[in-house]
Amino acid sequence: MERTIKIAVDAMGGDHAPKEIIKGAVEAVKEMNAHVILVGEQQAMERELEKYSYDHTKIEKVFAAEVISTDETPTVAIRKKKDSSMVVGLHLVKEKKADAFVSAGSTGALLTGALFIVGRIKGVERPVLGTCLPDKHGFTFLMDSGANVDCKAKYLEQFAKMGSVYIENMYGIQNPRVALVNIGSEKEKGNALTKEAYELLEQTDLNFTGNIEPREIPFGKADVVVCDGFVGNTILKLAEGLSVALLGAIKEEITVGHYKLAAAALKKPFGNIKKRFDADEVGGAPFLGLQSLVVKAHGSSQSKAIKNAIKQCILFTEADIVSKIQNKL
Amino acid sequence: MERTIKIAVDAMGGDHAPKEIIKGAVEAVKEMNAHVILVGEQQAMERELEKYSYDHTKIEKVFAAEVISTDETPTVAIRKKKDSSMVVGLHLVKEKKADAFVSAGSTGALLTGALFIVGRIKGVERPVLGTCLPDKHGFTFLMDSGANVDCKAKYLEQFAKMGSVYIENMYGIQNPRVALVNIGSEKEKGNALTKEAYELLEQTDLNFTGNIEPREIPFGKADVVVCDGFVGNTILKLAEGLSVALLGAIKEEITVGHYKLAAAALKKPFGNIKKRFDADEVGGAPFLGLQSLVVKAHGSSQSKAIKNAIKQCILFTEADIVSKIQNKL
Repeated sequence: MERTIKIAVDAMGGDHAPKEIIKGAVEAVKEMNAHVILVGEQQAMERELEKYSYDHTKIEKVFAAEVISTDETPTVAIRKKKDSSMVVGLHLVKEKKADAFVSAGSTGALLTGALFIVGRIKGVERPVLGTCLPDKHGFTFLMDSGANVDCKAKYLEQFAKMGSVYIENMYGIQNPRVALVNIGSEKEKGNALTKEAYELLEQTDLNFTGNIEPREIPFGKADVVVCDGFVGNTILKLAEGLSVALLGAIKEEITVGHYKLAAAALKKPFGNIKKRFDADEVGGAPFLGLQSLVVKAHGSSQSKAIKNAIKQCILFTEADIVSKIQNKL
Repeated sequence: MERTIKIAVDAMGGDHAPKEIIKGAVEAVKEMNAHVILVGEQQAMERELEKYSYDHTKIEKVFAAEVISTDETPTVAIRKKKDSSMVVGLHLVKEKKADAFVSAGSTGALLTGALFIVGRIKGVERPVLGTCLPDKHGFTFLMDSGANVDCKAKYLEQFAKMGSVYIENMYGIQNPRVALVNIGSEKEKGNALTKEAYELLEQTDLNFTGNIEPREIPFGKADVVVCDGFVGNTILKLAEGLSVALLGAIKEEITVGHYKLAAAALKKPFGNIKKRFDADEVGGAPFLGLQSLVVKAHGSSQSKAIKNAIKQCILFTEADIVSKIQNKL
């Protein structure tokens, strides 16, 4: 008999916790063969769970009295709040009581806690946060999207390998195209870091397609793009901000006077656009290079994002991506 | 009697040279009190100039037989092509025969040539490329947008000072808000470079408003934003690419089937959006910190962008921004 895969979920993290988190967990156990361990405040969790009918054998509860907020200093919060939903959840993974952990809470605390509690795969220099950046044709897997702000070329080489394994096994993309984010397409372009990283990437067995300029990223010209966490986070956050600003400006222009009627007629296609550029569709951001998967769900996650993050954890565990990463390095 | 301000223009640089460059120069001398020196191949320039009627005392021609293309190595091209429109134009500025120089040619060659031929203002560590990034409410002045890919904190401090002087004098924005591009709003966030730059910026007399996260940039929350040239170029190019991708996706969704009619009715407001996010409106990117102004116009510049870049050079020279930058450092 196959063992049951169990996913621990931080019930208290994110802007819409615990409501949307618990709704997402319930949807997950209804829609797929999932077993979820919810971690959080007893009363808050029970109050939300009461709203739903579901198979009670598929949702476990583990109580934790504290919550880490996004304005706390990550290292201090992880060290002091031993009974927080995040720390308790990470320990479940460490002790193999859960296969993976999902949280929509503080990114900094989650990355710090995951690194110290769950621990790295042997040989991994720096675990890396990958994010599926929605684009015109699907998505591009961006890593590092914010975990390591100062990087060495060697880290970028490892990011590329981990990203390639992840995308190949999670999405069935054979031999994914891996590109280096750079401000010019020629090999000799860029800063000290990218020049050195280019040399290393050329020597790997990856499908390395060379440099990708940021303007090309939204057109899906690579499956995996690598950069340091400062540049990656800049790309991620600017893309979010600019999409909102641009769609907001369009709304301002077309919902006035006699344009209103035409704008109303276009509600559906505009909804499609939002869906095409919607991060919730692809789950959360995996923190790769650890002994087990830890997924950072967006702070504004609704139930759909949580459900998709749980699905992502199950696929990851089934495909045994941790061993595959270890073999690749 | 006031001396005549003369602007040298590279007639051969850019995707639409010489046609659009010369059209822009003619428009400039018609619309404003401008005196332009066109630099380029005799026949090509004369053939284009013949198309227009204008005050011939206001456009001079200086002939240069060579053209530097965008795929040449900048340092080699500048050294070898002594009779190129770019090198000849930069020498006009160096020899004070022109007050400023505009080119839509190779960015790398222009920055290299400007640095070596025109030379730095005393005390400037690194000249910096500033770009007006269109946003929801106007624009944000981004610097460095690509000249210095590896920076020290001290450079960023100087970028901030130069940007502040430029924006105050060119656009009449008193005490412009200056922010540091960073991946978190708190002082202690960021990489080694931004942490050190924050300390330096705090001690200046600038209106330093702290860190700005990339997601906030498109909302015009600062007048000047500073970062290294790798990050700045990433912001600039991603913004360009994403706008095109997003507007393209919208067009795909709304120009099919029965939506076509509604989409057609919205042609004007969509035109307004393009105009609001159109880089051509604000001229070119000034390369600041040199003894005279050198402006990089976008490679795809049409006549309007060239005309506006010429206007920008006149304003810059009239306001004597070179002296003001020297005083500020």
